[in-house]
Amino acid sequence: MNPTLQYIGIVSSELKNMDDCPRQADEHAPAASVIVYPEFADGIRNIKPGDEILLLTWLHMGDRNVLETRPRNNPNAPLTGIFSTRSPNRPNPVGIHSVKVISIADGEIEVDGLEVLDQTPVIDIKPIWNTQI
Amino acid sequence: MNPTLQYIGIVSSELKNMDDCPRQADEHAPAASVIVYPEFADGIRNIKPGDEILLLTWLHMGDRNVLETRPRNNPNAPLTGIFSTRSPNRPNPVGIHSVKVISIADGEIEVDGLEVLDQTPVIDIKPIWNTQI
Repeated sequence: MNPTLQYIGIVSSELKNMDDCPRQADEHAPAASVIVYPEFADGIRNIKPGDEILLLTWLHMGDRNVLETRPRNNPNAPLTGIFSTRSPNRPNPVGIHSVKVISIADGEIEVDGLEVLDQTPVIDIKPIWNTQI
Repeated sequence: MNPTLQYIGIVSSELKNMDDCPRQADEHAPAASVIVYPEFADGIRNIKPGDEILLLTWLHMGDRNVLETRPRNNPNAPLTGIFSTRSPNRPNPVGIHSVKVISIADGEIEVDGLEVLDQTPVIDIKPIWNTQI
């Protein structure tokens, strides 16, 4: 039987509409917060300001039946297999976001440039890439 | 209601037991294959040899109730919040693996150094990090 995700928290952001969202974090994404649910608080107790972390989100507005797309919503782009793109429309719309921690207190992690919609669920947090922990 | 994952494929690897698995890809992980299920074949049609891809796996042997661990199974390491580690024991055991495509044919993607167990489910494939597609 396939597993069910547990949301560990939710994004709080000024990005309230899909049209407001940049397509990538380096396209002027604003700071945002991750509100971690109290039952997962023990999991974040070693995260500190300055840490570079990967946030994994569930892009809940994504269409899970899409297997091909025209990248960046460009009608002139060739139709491309979804697994060669980062479109949020895909069978499992997991978003991966490399961000820096600005502050952390009371289960709320403030991070720099995050390109997802307000109220996007968070499913995991990991140390950035090339660390060995 | 929380979403259910769809497995898009499965890993075929010589790593048959947990004890065989290196803890990170750069610790002598062997080449392996991703067998993509036929119903998702349209999604991989632009992947080609030489591509650098991110594989997202579901580390199905992970204990989903763990919130703290001693990194690298070292009994002398301090107890650490799980979201500051890459332990497979975590609420949503998503594995992220940066690999290079060696070959692709008939829904089977051969990749270099992959540190997961044979039969690990695959949930997503994305182009590597700093591409803009």
